[in-house]
Parts: sequence; C-alpha cells; structure tokens
Amino acid sequence: MTNASLDDLDRAILKLLKKDARLTIAEISNQLKKPESTVHFRIKKLQERGIIEKYTIIVGEPIKPRKLALVVLEIDMPIIEDFLERYIEYVTKTLSGFSEVLFVAKSGKEKIVALVGGESEESLLKFIEDNIESIPTLRNVMVFPISEIKKGDEIAGFLAEV
Amino acid sequence: MTNASLDDLDRAILKLLKKDARLTIAEISNQLKKPESTVHFRIKKLQERGIIEKYTIIVGEPIKPRKLALVVLEIDMPIIEDFLERYIEYVTKTLSGFSEVLFVAKSGKEKIVALVGGESEESLLKFIEDNIESIPTLRNVMVFPISEIKKGDEIAGFLAEV
Repeated sequence: MTNASLDDLDRAILKLLKKDARLTIAEISNQLKKPESTVHFRIKKLQERGIIEKYTIIVGEPIKPRKLALVVLEIDMPIIEDFLERYIEYVTKTLSGFSEVLFVAKSGKEKIVALVGGESEESLLKFIEDNIESIPTLRNVMVFPISEIKKGDEIAGFLAEV
Repeated sequence: MTNASLDDLDRAILKLLKKDARLTIAEISNQLKKPESTVHFRIKKLQERGIIEKYTIIVGEPIKPRKLALVVLEIDMPIIEDFLERYIEYVTKTLSGFSEVLFVAKSGKEKIVALVGGESEESLLKFIEDNIESIPTLRNVMVFPISEIKKGDEIAGFLAEV
C-alpha cells in the first residue's frame, strides 16, 4: 500500500477513528498528547485529501449474518462469444439483488466471486443451492463455507444490508 | 437475515448512519420528519442492543489498495493427520501478518480463503507469488483477481490497514 505521505500522527489519528469514529477532537488530542488545534487541522486535511472517505457504522450480532460462504461461479461460454458479457451482467445483477449476497465481483473474463451470508450453515447452503446454483448459464459453482475468520472479522457487520 | 424486531424507523436510521455516521440527531430528525427525542431514543436503543456495534471510517483512494484478488489455499494433508490444525494455524498466522492481506478465514478442514490487496494487478500477483504461493505445506493455490466490483465496493477502504 502506498503511504501517500502520511506521518505517524496522521496514522495514529486514523487508527483511533477506525476503532471509534465518534471520538471527539478533545478525546483524540488527549489520547495522542497533541494540541486540539493540530488534531482538528489534521482530520480536516485527511478528509479533504479523501484519505478519510466516509464515516459509517458496523452492525452487530442481532442483524448481521452469522455464517458466510465464498462462492466462485464460472459462466458457461456462450455459442456466440459476444454474449458472454451479457451472461455476466445477468448473473451479477441477479446476485446483487439478494440481500443475502454481501459482495459480488467479476474475476477475469468468465468468473464471478460472491460473498454470501446466512443464519446458519444449513440455511446458507440451501440459499446457495436454491438461488445461485440454479442460475442458468453457469458452468461450475465452487462453494467455500467460512468456518473461522482470522483477520477482517468485521466484514459481515460492515457489508450486511440494513 | 433475521430482522431482530427492527421497525421501519430503526432501519431508516441505520441506513442514514451507514451513509454518514457523523449526522447529528437534529439532521436525522429533520430528514426522517421525526422528533429529536424519538431519534435519540432509537439510536440509544440500537446501540444498547448491539445492533449498532461500532462507528468507524472507510479510507479512500490515496491509501486503499487499488486491486484485489481472492486467494483460495488448500493445505497439504500432513502424514500425521493431527498436524493439519498446526499447518492451518501456521498459514493463517503468516497470511494475517501481511498488511497486503485484508481478510483471512478457514474454510472446511483444509482450506483457507484470503483477500489480498495491492497497487496494481502486476504487483498484486507478484506479492502472491513471492509471499503466498511460496508458503510450505500448500497443496494448491487458486487465485481469482478481481476486475470489477458490482456490490460491496467499499470493502477495500474498510479492510485496508492504516
């Protein structure tokens, strides 16, 4: 990752805001032992430079999916090759429409990766079987149920639809 | 996803805070045409119930990775089967240590999925080759470079290390 000329203070501020974006200037100033005016100026600059892009919330257990699975779909090559793009569009649009599907992206020419969430592994696999594996124009579907997150475990609460 | 007895107002508040967690009670009250006291009470309840788990920031272009790839690693089955868990631990720990690796999770007994970020597709693939494919005890590594995100495109700015 480029560091985009961030110094230690910028990083320290970003780390604090990542943990709790409600911290006030006074609290940050106090924790980092820097004047409030400095902290205020730095945050303003970080926002102007687009380094802080957005303030948001992560939702918790009661509404975030408990189980995740990664799904890799391979699109069937159409007889008329020009239709491939249309097939991809169709499948990504179908997937994006489900609130259970948290993330959808193209990979290469003919693959799509998706992150899917559900209440339990059972209901998640059923959702994938009923709503994803049944999509026409698919050649192959690989499902990787996620059993334990070691890094980035807030992903479900961040991506969950509200 | 369970709805955990959220009504339309709760959802409307969550949607607004997801878009901009800095909105004041007065601004939310104004946008939703509800009394400030009601909005205040609802947000307090959402926090107490853990439905709003955390307030955080998303970082932007200057520091977030420009290119992502999904990597699925299959661990070699050790001669002594009891060692599998140790192999998995070793690989997930190694992966988690890289700032380029944004997400790491176990999948099933012998697979690991990871989301990796980089400056360009070239540097990303080189990182994967040098630092992931070279890890011992791997039987197979599948790499899915992400070319276009259709849903959940803030994932890189959310997961990026600061």
